[in-house]
Amino acid sequence: MDPRIQTIDGNSALIFYALRPSQPDGPMTLTFERHQSDVPVQQLSQHLFSTDGFLERQARILPLLENEPLLSKEKQQHLSRVERFKLALARAKLLRRMADKHQWSDDDYKMAQYLVDDVSPYFLQTEMFVTTVREQASEKQRDYWLPLIESWRIVGAYAQTELGHGSNVRGLECQARWDPSTREFILHSPSLTSSKWWNGSLGRVANHAIVVAQLLLPKAGGNEEYISYGPHPFVVQVRDLKSNKPLPGVVIGDIGPKYGYATMDNAYVLFDQFRIPHSAMLSRYSSVDPDSGEYTKPEQPAAVYGSLTYARAKIVRHARLVLARAVTVAVRYTVIRRQFRDRDGSGTEQEMSVLDYPTVQIRILPLLATTFALHYTGLAMQNVYHAARKDIESGQYKSLSYMHSMSSGLKSLCTMLAADGIETCRRAMGGHGFGGGSGLIQLNNDYLSKPTVEGDNWMITQQLAAYLIKKMAAAVESIDTTGEDEVDARFKAFISKRRQTRSSTSHSLNLRNDHDIVKGFEDRATILVFEAYELRIIKKQKWNKLLIQLHKLSKAQSQLILVTTFFDALSAETSLEDSAKSKLWDLYRLFALTTMENEAYEFFRCGAISQSDLNAIPSRIEELMGRIRPHAVNLVDSWKIPDYLLDSALGRWDGRVYEDLFHRAHRLNPLNNITFNPNCWEEEIVMGTGETGRDILAKL
Amino acid sequence: MDPRIQTIDGNSALIFYALRPSQPDGPMTLTFERHQSDVPVQQLSQHLFSTDGFLERQARILPLLENEPLLSKEKQQHLSRVERFKLALARAKLLRRMADKHQWSDDDYKMAQYLVDDVSPYFLQTEMFVTTVREQASEKQRDYWLPLIESWRIVGAYAQTELGHGSNVRGLECQARWDPSTREFILHSPSLTSSKWWNGSLGRVANHAIVVAQLLLPKAGGNEEYISYGPHPFVVQVRDLKSNKPLPGVVIGDIGPKYGYATMDNAYVLFDQFRIPHSAMLSRYSSVDPDSGEYTKPEQPAAVYGSLTYARAKIVRHARLVLARAVTVAVRYTVIRRQFRDRDGSGTEQEMSVLDYPTVQIRILPLLATTFALHYTGLAMQNVYHAARKDIESGQYKSLSYMHSMSSGLKSLCTMLAADGIETCRRAMGGHGFGGGSGLIQLNNDYLSKPTVEGDNWMITQQLAAYLIKKMAAAVESIDTTGEDEVDARFKAFISKRRQTRSSTSHSLNLRNDHDIVKGFEDRATILVFEAYELRIIKKQKWNKLLIQLHKLSKAQSQLILVTTFFDALSAETSLEDSAKSKLWDLYRLFALTTMENEAYEFFRCGAISQSDLNAIPSRIEELMGRIRPHAVNLVDSWKIPDYLLDSALGRWDGRVYEDLFHRAHRLNPLNNITFNPNCWEEEIVMGTGETGRDILAKL
Repeated sequence: MDPRIQTIDGNSALIFYALRPSQPDGPMTLTFERHQSDVPVQQLSQHLFSTDGFLERQARILPLLENEPLLSKEKQQHLSRVERFKLALARAKLLRRMADKHQWSDDDYKMAQYLVDDVSPYFLQTEMFVTTVREQASEKQRDYWLPLIESWRIVGAYAQTELGHGSNVRGLECQARWDPSTREFILHSPSLTSSKWWNGSLGRVANHAIVVAQLLLPKAGGNEEYISYGPHPFVVQVRDLKSNKPLPGVVIGDIGPKYGYATMDNAYVLFDQFRIPHSAMLSRYSSVDPDSGEYTKPEQPAAVYGSLTYARAKIVRHARLVLARAVTVAVRYTVIRRQFRDRDGSGTEQEMSVLDYPTVQIRILPLLATTFALHYTGLAMQNVYHAARKDIESGQYKSLSYMHSMSSGLKSLCTMLAADGIETCRRAMGGHGFGGGSGLIQLNNDYLSKPTVEGDNWMITQQLAAYLIKKMAAAVESIDTTGEDEVDARFKAFISKRRQTRSSTSHSLNLRNDHDIVKGFEDRATILVFEAYELRIIKKQKWNKLLIQLHKLSKAQSQLILVTTFFDALSAETSLEDSAKSKLWDLYRLFALTTMENEAYEFFRCGAISQSDLNAIPSRIEELMGRIRPHAVNLVDSWKIPDYLLDSALGRWDGRVYEDLFHRAHRLNPLNNITFNPNCWEEEIVMGTGETGRDILAKL
Repeated sequence: MDPRIQTIDGNSALIFYALRPSQPDGPMTLTFERHQSDVPVQQLSQHLFSTDGFLERQARILPLLENEPLLSKEKQQHLSRVERFKLALARAKLLRRMADKHQWSDDDYKMAQYLVDDVSPYFLQTEMFVTTVREQASEKQRDYWLPLIESWRIVGAYAQTELGHGSNVRGLECQARWDPSTREFILHSPSLTSSKWWNGSLGRVANHAIVVAQLLLPKAGGNEEYISYGPHPFVVQVRDLKSNKPLPGVVIGDIGPKYGYATMDNAYVLFDQFRIPHSAMLSRYSSVDPDSGEYTKPEQPAAVYGSLTYARAKIVRHARLVLARAVTVAVRYTVIRRQFRDRDGSGTEQEMSVLDYPTVQIRILPLLATTFALHYTGLAMQNVYHAARKDIESGQYKSLSYMHSMSSGLKSLCTMLAADGIETCRRAMGGHGFGGGSGLIQLNNDYLSKPTVEGDNWMITQQLAAYLIKKMAAAVESIDTTGEDEVDARFKAFISKRRQTRSSTSHSLNLRNDHDIVKGFEDRATILVFEAYELRIIKKQKWNKLLIQLHKLSKAQSQLILVTTFFDALSAETSLEDSAKSKLWDLYRLFALTTMENEAYEFFRCGAISQSDLNAIPSRIEELMGRIRPHAVNLVDSWKIPDYLLDSALGRWDGRVYEDLFHRAHRLNPLNNITFNPNCWEEEIVMGTGETGRDILAKL
């Protein structure tokens, strides 16, 4: 027998490294790709990450994680849900211990979570729980709770969504009834659908939660009737700190397996006349007087949206890294993967890298461009969020509705781009994209929560649409709006031009002029708003009848934001070499033009672009893809996604795709340790053990 | 304490059935929906399934399965990959025993597999293994192998794809070298990339496989040089029938976890100078003379595509049931799910069914229409396949290229419609669509293999495009084509009209005329073929440069087939009541017009439809959705997907959505039997057990 074959454990097994892939192999191909591009990877990385010390932090935290056996991802795909959750909890505890040991900052800790890539069972503690207390608690409440939370003496979650209600927060059924006799609130779940549901970190882990419930105050007269003041947040202890069992009157559990998020214990919670003290109601904006039972309503009702907007803004900011991860894998693998010789070639060439096929390019390269578009928009969203928070903290609310509507439209669009982008990358990799070595399975499964979580992507586009229609109405009525933003100016110019020319459509664009492209997006978005304004405000059509149009208009405005922030960022950029900057401009063009092509008829109908210009887009896209293709590997390299995070045979930095796929199959797969009994038609399944199917089910 | 709360196992637990969902609940809503529609469900079901006894078979097999505890799907989501595979193997054996006991036909057995919904570890045995032997073995070989296969004395698989090559079958590296001295072939894997890969049923189960390898025959002269005659199929024993261990010289294993297909043991296989007899080469079409070593090539090289086309045609035919399953869940849940009162209402109404929102309708109702479109096209594809097989069996090959190209284009389009449709349904269900109670998780995970398997969806569209360009060239040159089909006639009419009028674009359509819609699709497809013909044949452009256009043209032709077969089937239909037929016509219109709207600019650019007609489409779609909406529940009911197959809390027939979700979370979730130790920062994770994260990993 050939010496490369060895017998291990009674089974013949190949020493895989003795066999090599056919040539040119992955390392050779990636080396070639990296050398033939003039993109300065380090400089571009600095450009992407300079603002927040991200790269330095990643470089510092990463080796610490890679040294911990518990954080190895090698075999985790093989675990059951229960075991996977246990592993995640063990890892989360380890990260806490590491945070203490290495004196990690909050950002360091979040970097570690990002790299480990488990959705942490403690996730809500450091996000919605602490954020809500910070933003909605009174000063006295903050003084009490924040030290407990920040020292991790308590672990908290956020329980708003119910089995029957998610989007419609006002429809929540869980009740918090004020009992003046004991000065307590009574939390109660009056129906099955009032069960809290989906609440992360709460199913098995948290001992405290923000519980959002309908505030019920007794009617004057004392005849057991109540008035509802709408949903309010309460901070509630739900489990015993020692036994970790639910307190009497509270039923909690994990809701079971989901599409992804295996490591998160999303909860159901029912309350049975569960009494909580007066101090449980977070009372920064609204409160109940413990003596009189009188209600004080928030000065600015919108202020309570703060936490939600925080979550949306964070999702928008994160989308770039999610998509960059998928695109990194897809680009590296599709240059290494070769299939077919050129049909019009001499027949003697190597097989072509599949990324050289336009049908592969058209799927991956626009997504590469999208990662950068998401980057600049994420930055802009972050800036808007911080500015608005600052306003709110100082008691000013004028920027709140802009921030809220922008975060809604962008959350919808950006999560769709990233979620669909992952799947497009996966399919572009053909068969191996379906395999566990792609590194996209958990990413896809987890990220597919994003289009519906924190406001359903189709539902929340109404918020941006309503904002824009209001702005258009103000422009038509020439109302001076305080806190004027880009939108006001554009709408006013549109209305004024329309009054002069009686025509709203326009000019032909020069698609080779980068600013003309922005104008095309502006015109289309403006027209769509104006049409919606006419239907809703002038013709008084029903809101629900307009929903599809409103969705389109939110998308158009959000795409405009992506294109504009990309354009503005590049226009203002001064420190990058031309070898980097010229590629960014090409990516800008590719992003904008493929977006335009996907919605071609809408641009055309709106008069935002002429037919001849539209017809020129495909060849322009092809030209841009041809220019970007040689730099694709260096461009994804500049995202600096480490192999540890990628966890991908197809996308690894060194290109050893086939070696790694074989290694995972042959060395890391426990199924191969079992010899089955497939030719025996009796009940035994594992050779010589007598183990049957019933035995498997009995273990659950 | 409220009597509805009981203490079980020291944990307070709710007797869930004592709490009811808020009203109107699911059963009430579905009863209302079913009564207010005049769609005759039974009659429509008969219409859909009359041809092949499907409903009778389903009704007969289903109760047998529901009675087997091993086939209960209640807890399977909680298993690890290894345990899930074991369960699937145990079930597959049970199905074999049941087949014997109940004397099931082949179709009965496949019905049972369909309902159990595991991808069977024996799947390849009854599909590609036996099909390839039937179609490619000589008569003598068939006489030997078929009885062994059909009696299940051997279990077989199909090993074609390799680690390095899938689509490019000619690029396969595995070798079958003829050794004249022993009259044997020597199977050998010369590189890592030559490892067989993905081969279903072979990783742990099958003892035989069709192995596709490069046939190498010695050059005359005997100096150890060989000539390759391309890939050929060999039937090979790979495991010992008793021990189920690989034979010496063969390395086999399972490739590990994938996106889906957890129950399938996709294999890697390496051969080390593994000798097989002369009789192993399937020799119906080509053969090697054992005496002279001379090669006989197939008369019709295309004949060997038979098996592949079989797999594609089967996928096309199956797509309707896959999508119907997702749409059934989505329709039932979105009528039951209520969220928000009408914004323009009086404020006292019930919350609205989410299916009453146009933004939910526009996602689900066109997919409901698509299930029917897929149905009629699947039937047409099946008929074309059977006719072509009949021709081939009688030595005629004229219909082969039509069948092959049609199956390629339709496989690409139909799997994309179904795969994307599942995910669209899932997202349209909001948060609960992400939960395990949706019933769409395994469906999605498994079905997402289809866009890349059996010919990648983007790659194989070249085959239909090439066929159409050839037909157009024949039409231009007025060549009489034998076996004239719909395409020939259309292209000839186009060319003749074009010569008369010097214009290829046309007429305005009446979108309310159902046949005009077909014409719009015809015109667009024809123009796209003509443009591709000009670029490739006249202007001699490189094939690879045209790939994006070729993909679009394949899609256009395939969409035309869907629209035409739908139209033709309804036009010919005579037995349905008008209450059913009128809905089918509306579904036809909705499918065609939403397809048109999604590609609006292409239709416009091709002159297939005018701008004013295009602008009228959205309101026409809205009108159709309004007409279809009241019948949505009855229309999905007529697909008769049983609850056992749906395995969905959201989609169950009786509408007890929330009760079932709670039941799954509270009663069927083993995670809730474990009390964790989240507040202790040491290594213990499960309260009082000392179990640590390292213990979890050590089990693998």
